[in-house]
Amino acid sequence: MTDVIQHLNWRYATKSYDASKKLDDDKLNRILEAIRLAPTSSGLQPFEVFVVNNPELRAKIREVAWNQLQVTDASHLLVFAAWDNITPERIDSMFDYTNEVRGFKNEGWEAYRQKLQSIVAARSDAANFDAAARQAYIGLGVALVAAAAEGVDSTPMEGFDPAAVDQILSLKERKLRSVVVLPLGYRKPDTDWLVNLKKVRRPREQFVTELN
Amino acid sequence: MTDVIQHLNWRYATKSYDASKKLDDDKLNRILEAIRLAPTSSGLQPFEVFVVNNPELRAKIREVAWNQLQVTDASHLLVFAAWDNITPERIDSMFDYTNEVRGFKNEGWEAYRQKLQSIVAARSDAANFDAAARQAYIGLGVALVAAAAEGVDSTPMEGFDPAAVDQILSLKERKLRSVVVLPLGYRKPDTDWLVNLKKVRRPREQFVTELN
Repeated sequence: MTDVIQHLNWRYATKSYDASKKLDDDKLNRILEAIRLAPTSSGLQPFEVFVVNNPELRAKIREVAWNQLQVTDASHLLVFAAWDNITPERIDSMFDYTNEVRGFKNEGWEAYRQKLQSIVAARSDAANFDAAARQAYIGLGVALVAAAAEGVDSTPMEGFDPAAVDQILSLKERKLRSVVVLPLGYRKPDTDWLVNLKKVRRPREQFVTELN
Repeated sequence: MTDVIQHLNWRYATKSYDASKKLDDDKLNRILEAIRLAPTSSGLQPFEVFVVNNPELRAKIREVAWNQLQVTDASHLLVFAAWDNITPERIDSMFDYTNEVRGFKNEGWEAYRQKLQSIVAARSDAANFDAAARQAYIGLGVALVAAAAEGVDSTPMEGFDPAAVDQILSLKERKLRSVVVLPLGYRKPDTDWLVNLKKVRRPREQFVTELN
């Protein structure tokens, strides 16, 4: 068994957090760094992460998130927000930045920039948003492992009204749309109905198919 | 620095694989197990993973994947395929299975089943597929960390024609649609243009916003 499998077996979608226990900054920063390092299609990183510490904002989000207590009781609340569209400017910005970091222009990379621009231009805004949203879920997958590796509980949550959260966090002005939220903190086992229940995953033969 | 951050810094989108180096089964199985353990919304696991070993199938996939050599040169090729729709039967199947694994029926869980059924029924088939596809990307994120933890190189790839891959692998008959493919294997540094280039990620201040 590797650490990654151990981490995944340890974690579960925490239903009750101990509001008195706070993550220290080092742990939070390492989790955020793991998300930042997550790979994305063409390296665009077409999403951002919001760490919502303001109690009033968290109370408002809880109201539009089926009143789930984790939103306010967890130590920290991350909101993953994807680009509302993949625009020519956003692509150029990341490609230019790549050239800046690497210190040179690469002919193949510039040809790929043009190819990507034409692919993205041919898709609808909605399809570009969907493509961006998927990339945010790579970050989410990485975040879940990174949190567990820190001994930090987490709860991936889609049960909220994205448009309402966008309004609460003024995401529209930033041309972003919320896609998933992730409370982080420490479980409160005595009030968590899920903590002692068995993890359920389909058996491997219903999940993996080898084509030989 | 944690292991997860080390793994993420070590990995990169491998452009050239050493076709002579094969993953041993233990490593492959641990990566697949990590993907199987990845959490998904409502625990549906609305995707499957195909391990394409057949050389003819891989050659055909390469033809519809911009002729990218990784598809045939990597040791193994994973194809992530999401449910083409989230149907009442598929939901019931996972909720029934959960009851079976846990050995009892839970009133709250049954109420949630009904709530989920109504949410899913109110969405278009396309929106349900999009929701399923996002979950596959959680699995992808986990797979990338798990592979790196094994010292295995990988290349997340969206550059292929999904409808063509669906046809090659007969996914439509299984009511699945390919969303992302992941070659796994060992890098061949002398023919890989990316291996020595700097990893590019936006600086934290352009990626993370704290709302205090």
